[in-house]
Amino acid sequence: MNIKNILIEVEKGRISAEDALSKINADKTEDLGFVKIDHARKQRCGFPEVVYGENKTPQQIKLILNELFAKNGYALATRVSSIAYDEIKNEIKNAEYDELSSTLMLGCYPDYVPSTKEIVVVAAGTSDIGVAQEAVISAKYARAKVTSIFDVGVAGIHRLFESLEVLENAGAIIAVAGMEGALPSVIGGLVSCPVIAVPTSVGYGASFGGIAALLGMLNSCASGIGVVNIDNGFGAGILAARIVLGKDNNE
Amino acid sequence: MNIKNILIEVEKGRISAEDALSKINADKTEDLGFVKIDHARKQRCGFPEVVYGENKTPQQIKLILNELFAKNGYALATRVSSIAYDEIKNEIKNAEYDELSSTLMLGCYPDYVPSTKEIVVVAAGTSDIGVAQEAVISAKYARAKVTSIFDVGVAGIHRLFESLEVLENAGAIIAVAGMEGALPSVIGGLVSCPVIAVPTSVGYGASFGGIAALLGMLNSCASGIGVVNIDNGFGAGILAARIVLGKDNNE
Amino acid sequence: MNIKNILIEVEKGRISAEDALSKINADKTEDLGFVKIDHARKQRCGFPEVVYGENKTPQQIKLILNELFAKNGYALATRVSSIAYDEIKNEIKNAEYDELSSTLMLGCYPDYVPSTKEIVVVAAGTSDIGVAQEAVISAKYARAKVTSIFDVGVAGIHRLFESLEVLENAGAIIAVAGMEGALPSVIGGLVSCPVIAVPTSVGYGASFGGIAALLGMLNSCASGIGVVNIDNGFGAGILAARIVLGKDNNE
Amino acid sequence: MNIKNILIEVEKGRISAEDALSKINADKTEDLGFVKIDHARKQRCGFPEVVYGENKTPQQIKLILNELFAKNGYALATRVSSIAYDEIKNEIKNAEYDELSSTLMLGCYPDYVPSTKEIVVVAAGTSDIGVAQEAVISAKYARAKVTSIFDVGVAGIHRLFESLEVLENAGAIIAVAGMEGALPSVIGGLVSCPVIAVPTSVGYGASFGGIAALLGMLNSCASGIGVVNIDNGFGAGILAARIVLGKDNNE
Amino acid sequence: MNIKNILIEVEKGRISAEDALSKINADKTEDLGFVKIDHARKQRCGFPEVVYGENKTPQQIKLILNELFAKNGYALATRVSSIAYDEIKNEIKNAEYDELSSTLMLGCYPDYVPSTKEIVVVAAGTSDIGVAQEAVISAKYARAKVTSIFDVGVAGIHRLFESLEVLENAGAIIAVAGMEGALPSVIGGLVSCPVIAVPTSVGYGASFGGIAALLGMLNSCASGIGVVNIDNGFGAGILAARIVLGKDNNE
Amino acid sequence: MNIKNILIEVEKGRISAEDALSKINADKTEDLGFVKIDHARKQRCGFPEVVYGENKTPQQIKLILNELFAKNGYALATRVSSIAYDEIKNEIKNAEYDELSSTLMLGCYPDYVPSTKEIVVVAAGTSDIGVAQEAVISAKYARAKVTSIFDVGVAGIHRLFESLEVLENAGAIIAVAGMEGALPSVIGGLVSCPVIAVPTSVGYGASFGGIAALLGMLNSCASGIGVVNIDNGFGAGILAARIVLGKDNNE
Amino acid sequence: MNIKNILIEVEKGRISAEDALSKINADKTEDLGFVKIDHARKQRCGFPEVVYGENKTPQQIKLILNELFAKNGYALATRVSSIAYDEIKNEIKNAEYDELSSTLMLGCYPDYVPSTKEIVVVAAGTSDIGVAQEAVISAKYARAKVTSIFDVGVAGIHRLFESLEVLENAGAIIAVAGMEGALPSVIGGLVSCPVIAVPTSVGYGASFGGIAALLGMLNSCASGIGVVNIDNGFGAGILAARIVLGKDNNE
Amino acid sequence: MNIKNILIEVEKGRISAEDALSKINADKTEDLGFVKIDHARKQRCGFPEVVYGENKTPQQIKLILNELFAKNGYALATRVSSIAYDEIKNEIKNAEYDELSSTLMLGCYPDYVPSTKEIVVVAAGTSDIGVAQEAVISAKYARAKVTSIFDVGVAGIHRLFESLEVLENAGAIIAVAGMEGALPSVIGGLVSCPVIAVPTSVGYGASFGGIAALLGMLNSCASGIGVVNIDNGFGAGILAARIVLGKDNNE
Repeated sequence: MNIKNILIEVEKGRISAEDALSKINADKTEDLGFVKIDHARKQRCGFPEVVYGENKTPQQIKLILNELFAKNGYALATRVSSIAYDEIKNEIKNAEYDELSSTLMLGCYPDYVPSTKEIVVVAAGTSDIGVAQEAVISAKYARAKVTSIFDVGVAGIHRLFESLEVLENAGAIIAVAGMEGALPSVIGGLVSCPVIAVPTSVGYGASFGGIAALLGMLNSCASGIGVVNIDNGFGAGILAARIVLGKDNNE
Repeated sequence: MNIKNILIEVEKGRISAEDALSKINADKTEDLGFVKIDHARKQRCGFPEVVYGENKTPQQIKLILNELFAKNGYALATRVSSIAYDEIKNEIKNAEYDELSSTLMLGCYPDYVPSTKEIVVVAAGTSDIGVAQEAVISAKYARAKVTSIFDVGVAGIHRLFESLEVLENAGAIIAVAGMEGALPSVIGGLVSCPVIAVPTSVGYGASFGGIAALLGMLNSCASGIGVVNIDNGFGAGILAARIVLGKDNNE
Repeated sequence: MNIKNILIEVEKGRISAEDALSKINADKTEDLGFVKIDHARKQRCGFPEVVYGENKTPQQIKLILNELFAKNGYALATRVSSIAYDEIKNEIKNAEYDELSSTLMLGCYPDYVPSTKEIVVVAAGTSDIGVAQEAVISAKYARAKVTSIFDVGVAGIHRLFESLEVLENAGAIIAVAGMEGALPSVIGGLVSCPVIAVPTSVGYGASFGGIAALLGMLNSCASGIGVVNIDNGFGAGILAARIVLGKDNNE
Repeated sequence: MNIKNILIEVEKGRISAEDALSKINADKTEDLGFVKIDHARKQRCGFPEVVYGENKTPQQIKLILNELFAKNGYALATRVSSIAYDEIKNEIKNAEYDELSSTLMLGCYPDYVPSTKEIVVVAAGTSDIGVAQEAVISAKYARAKVTSIFDVGVAGIHRLFESLEVLENAGAIIAVAGMEGALPSVIGGLVSCPVIAVPTSVGYGASFGGIAALLGMLNSCASGIGVVNIDNGFGAGILAARIVLGKDNNE
Repeated sequence: MNIKNILIEVEKGRISAEDALSKINADKTEDLGFVKIDHARKQRCGFPEVVYGENKTPQQIKLILNELFAKNGYALATRVSSIAYDEIKNEIKNAEYDELSSTLMLGCYPDYVPSTKEIVVVAAGTSDIGVAQEAVISAKYARAKVTSIFDVGVAGIHRLFESLEVLENAGAIIAVAGMEGALPSVIGGLVSCPVIAVPTSVGYGASFGGIAALLGMLNSCASGIGVVNIDNGFGAGILAARIVLGKDNNE
Repeated sequence: MNIKNILIEVEKGRISAEDALSKINADKTEDLGFVKIDHARKQRCGFPEVVYGENKTPQQIKLILNELFAKNGYALATRVSSIAYDEIKNEIKNAEYDELSSTLMLGCYPDYVPSTKEIVVVAAGTSDIGVAQEAVISAKYARAKVTSIFDVGVAGIHRLFESLEVLENAGAIIAVAGMEGALPSVIGGLVSCPVIAVPTSVGYGASFGGIAALLGMLNSCASGIGVVNIDNGFGAGILAARIVLGKDNNE
Repeated sequence: MNIKNILIEVEKGRISAEDALSKINADKTEDLGFVKIDHARKQRCGFPEVVYGENKTPQQIKLILNELFAKNGYALATRVSSIAYDEIKNEIKNAEYDELSSTLMLGCYPDYVPSTKEIVVVAAGTSDIGVAQEAVISAKYARAKVTSIFDVGVAGIHRLFESLEVLENAGAIIAVAGMEGALPSVIGGLVSCPVIAVPTSVGYGASFGGIAALLGMLNSCASGIGVVNIDNGFGAGILAARIVLGKDNNE
Repeated sequence: MNIKNILIEVEKGRISAEDALSKINADKTEDLGFVKIDHARKQRCGFPEVVYGENKTPQQIKLILNELFAKNGYALATRVSSIAYDEIKNEIKNAEYDELSSTLMLGCYPDYVPSTKEIVVVAAGTSDIGVAQEAVISAKYARAKVTSIFDVGVAGIHRLFESLEVLENAGAIIAVAGMEGALPSVIGGLVSCPVIAVPTSVGYGASFGGIAALLGMLNSCASGIGVVNIDNGFGAGILAARIVLGKDNNE
């Protein structure tokens, strides 16, 4: 959005007003009819747009992925059902589908940014692994290095302490938990890096599809915890990557 | 409710049908106009009725307390504001008012039941102490022995482990916590006795007056936890006493 | 967690620091990749870990059950659908599947702890029986003796009074009810033992999947009632067993 | 709304179209500026409009009451605070203020309709009496005969059975309860007359200002119960009166 | 529950204490294992128990219906899916299944109680007819006379006024509406008989499965309206029948 | 509802009272049994009744559509599933089914009202297009001119600015968005025409089926925004048409 | 935001790039430290910024009002408590304070825009008048002509019909109602102009501070209704003014 | 928690088992009776404990602050009312009270950590400044450098663009907003650094004390946003400091 530079170009007579206006608006959006691809996002936010697959047809997912792949050399879609994947798997090359997290990756992950600290993704229970895995893949997509530790819920808290050293050395921790969602509170009191809490919809009855875990995390007695939406592994992965990388790495 | 014995008395001609009917209904309830005192509760439930002071006038509290004191030798009212207490303190003898928990005790606590295990009341934060203290007093009123440990929230979890031995030897644990209410989950995974979880209204924003803590406790990943209403120290104390004493002790 | 004894062993030169550290962490957790089995739970909490089947694949359930069975001689999984059971029934020996409660038991129940009082499980309606049965099986798994009384809702309250004597002699009562959930309130006023209230999701409209019953039980005008999550028969069974057994029986 | 008769009058030339239009609209509403008094309500609904005092100034209450009193010979306002009453008590004649229910009555109650059955108002706890009393007064205002029984909550259910005969003979029962609101369910299963359930805001924590009681009553396992708004003693009294009186009595 | 008379029998030596006890408890409940049929309900409440079919197997429904039919000569089940009906239709005689309301009737309706006023069932929209029909059948089952008026929502309010005379002559009105549920408020201001409001789950988005309609009805600015649970046509029908019949008619 | 004119006719003896009464009630409603078609709606509200298809059978939809088509020359049904459409497509002529928005149109749209400003329908994401399309079709049905702009969510806000000129010239803007629903707030601060906000159920977790978007729109910091129900494209289209057309155009 | 014209100026060398940038950003915002006054709003949205007084100190309100008055010749603040007004009334000239709606007007209202239709503000009850009055004043501030009709709730629906002609001629109707909020539904079915529904917090119990009315209005069975936030008379007034005026009038 | 090193010390005979145990537990917690000060927190989490003043007496606040000040040379308390401050201001030295944010600082802020990027705190409205200021002070307390931009809500979105360059260069952005809480969504789409969203309780009606803003932020269509509790400026400040500093800086 370097409007000042464009104005100087106009002032110096190097480009016309008409061209300047195009330049201001152009190269940002590509219109596929049902979607306007935001190609400027990588420049603005540090990584290319990711396709949210939930309400899109397999063909729509395929089209946008291909478009992004052509532009960037890799592309990612989340919430792609195995049924949707089956329909398009023969039409996309270089694709890797992860059933656990319902993510679909085109091309290789970009290289890790060297000399940044690792992200540690911690999941409380076996059922939380799918969401945790979405976080792992999303963070790797944004060029971060990721480690994961699963099934360390607070009801058997010694399991968490066994991994204490890994936690203490993390650049950012993503704590994924359903039910009462107490894991981020315990971790938050043990480390000094930022903690991202991801409530999951795992539970029943008064868990209300993840509300109990969400409220638990928002009200944590530990300070310095940022919460994302229920089951939002993607958002947590991106936020963690933004934290460990910093802007300069995105050039 | 020994209706069979009464019927036998009638059959043997020892009492009339009219008297039998009175006997069935009598001695259970005393009518003060605005209240029917349930004198049979001690026999049925193991401890005399306790006065819930919140919506009663000071005079009403005084009247019922005196009535219960005359019958049992001791009496307890909860949720008595200091203003209410000031108004009646000159008119009641043998009274002890605890400002922290807003409870008013008439007469001495009954003797502890010997050879029962202790109840341990644990509070997560300084602000939870009032509710915890209501639990302590209520349990003592029901003839239980009580110890308390305050300010051991999960954000500094080593504070809890310092008291691990006391917790492991308890007959029942009352865990009092506001905010995310994670304390009972952690304790529940460390001990084998029953754990009673008391959510408090301590917190702000999305704690919604204790709902976050309540939901956290209901969805605990630790098993064997019973939850009471928000701020209900009284109910927790009575339930813990029922647990450690058993029925036979109430004769 | 006998860290003191381990330290003495080190001090006396009997074991090395390295071994001591292993000893502190070891023997507690077994890692199957997707799950860390908490073998120390029986020692800490009095009964082996129980498999929560809801979000696990049949193969995962089978693997964990076998592992627990090998260690303890018996094992239990709850929320196992009949479809999941069909898939694994030929691969597990000594298994008994209870369709009503969706529980799967491997091996025989451990012996009852002698000389403890019975748990009485009471269900308000025919539709609440599945949850009640989960409570029965869970309590038996934790070595308690259990009796059950079904279909005694408060709209025909004489049905409850017919069982009054059984209720008065219980060591703990589990009251299971959907809709308005009034059953624990009525029972709580009739007995002196602890009452565990289990709201069920039975109902429609403003029952909101069990919220009405849950709120009713949390706000009971009877004192000494502990509430568990909606449909959580398992948690109620374990809590009741913790109550009637006491810690000493778990050695 | 006898539009047909008015049309016949026009047809027969007895009245002009202009007059007919006035006749259709007139005599129904009186405009005091801030309020349009609905004088036709007595004819349509069987009793004169009642003033809801909550958001009105004392002067507004006084003006409307006087207007209604002049028209009907008696008038009622609910939710009149004692402060509001103090401000106007010297300016209204024949007024009786009931502090318990915050109602203000002008003139005498109209005569009971003879040969109708009694309404029985039952309150679960001492704190519910204010709402119950509002029901009593409202029903009497609508010409019904009323009896009341207070403090018969389900935690001491024998207190309710002591009044069983009165309940069985009622023309309609109003059951007032806060907390878990179980009273109407128990009563509904014991009688054959209509039961009106009034949840009150009595309680704390998860009672959510009466929501727990409201949900309990809406989900009652007893059939034939109609529920009114939280603390709405007035509405219950009017509904009960409509039930016992029937339309014919309103002529 | 004529305990006094039984006591007199004992006193006079006509029956033994043992027999008296049996007499008090007997003839009320029939135990089919999964259900205790409450045969005393007709005497207590004026109509035989009705089977709530939602969580019962077709075989359970059939068994209870047959039991009730044998005792009373007619029997009713609500919320019987057409699939359940298909499974048992060859095994039950005299059955009539109403698909619209999912009710299953055995035998003929009992005769109307003569000289009582009619119940008028009014439904706001086409989609509300199923619930309305459940009310119609339930009321007829309880011996009341019923008329119905469908599709008269407030957005075309002249449709309601066309039926004003029928409404004004009703003994009780059942107003069934989803969406904003305004119909009972408008009707309540036009008539003097009791109005029973039935919110339905018809609607979408912020109707929240009927909550919007339920709240609208509870907060009606018209007085004298009793509300039942969402989609509870059955409860409304029974309540209306209780209103128009009175107890004496049920002998 | 020109009752005055009818009265004058009666007064002048031109029509009888009986006829007048018919005239007042007639021509407004057509009774198909399960539905009363409100033919007077076009006169009162400016466009013919639209069929809400969600809870109607395909046959019911067909019948009402045909009735409306016969009367007005065009007819519209919303929320018609493709399954329902398949069942009736051979029985209705001149029908056009739009799968995206599940709408079914009979006959041609009526002519645009000339010289009125355009409605601009803006959708935040690809998944919101279905609801947006329902708004487009509904507004055209009510004779308005409509333009649409899709996929301009606030996370790439430059996409919105590219269409600023179109927005500034609109007669009314319909802003459709799920998730956080921020689009109407941003638009509301950029234009001077009325903005209609349509929350959609697009999202997951704490979006609660559109509640998050609904609340966001109701609390917009921009002034002059009217909100409709979640996913209510139809209502938004009609409201926008009412705005740009004005009453006079409906004659 | 005429960026194209500015670019042309640069291109023609009439202004420098630096000046162009200033021009783009300038004249829009005035920084008072605690607030950035949005002077461009009148040009963008058709009326000057209005001060929301609720969380501002009297001095802040005064400062911003004076600033806006100096720029535009008139200024408005809403939600100014009488206490706040008392503190600043001697320091502001030309001020008129309306206690009913808590609004504070500086200078005269701008002239009505001639030849536009009137806005009609309708309030259901006496207690809704304050919110209705806020709508009246806000609409007049935005240069619209306004009429108001108070106390025409649906429980006495004839009162509404008395004003039918005024409603039918309105350019836009604002319907203000608390409790069940049914008024807009009834009006929406009677007229063809846009209807703006304003729920108020008037009510008690299950009205939940206006939620019942809000939901009722969002779920209205009448089409073409736009809803604003609870008690948001201001927003309704501005929206209605936007509707009747159109953009062209704002130049 | 360097348990390994302590074990080696024991092994080497340098310290006794008893001393080792003390060492493990000691130096972490200081017991003031009502509170256990967590002195180990600075080492674990990077900054000393902060006093949450809301439910503490002025004397309690003073005692803990002094204790922390003595240990660390500076100390901070949040949510200290001006009344509480007045009571203790003469007893604490080096104190600075910030009325806007209700924070109380003892001693000077610690030095900024050099060469880290700035935190930018952005507030949407004037009323959000108090919460924003709490974030500013908390972040500075944790040694971060902070800039703030106030009153840049999305309804006048050009105000935000004026500060775009500052936002693009931030190390972390804290976006504070009430009402619909759209600000973080717009910012999240413009920058590549982590964004922390703070919902505030500013708003009325359907803002529900900040729930609307909270939900808006959790459902943001921009990715990489972490949300904290309503009004939790403190938590946001600490999280932002954790992000820009990294662990190594805390030694």
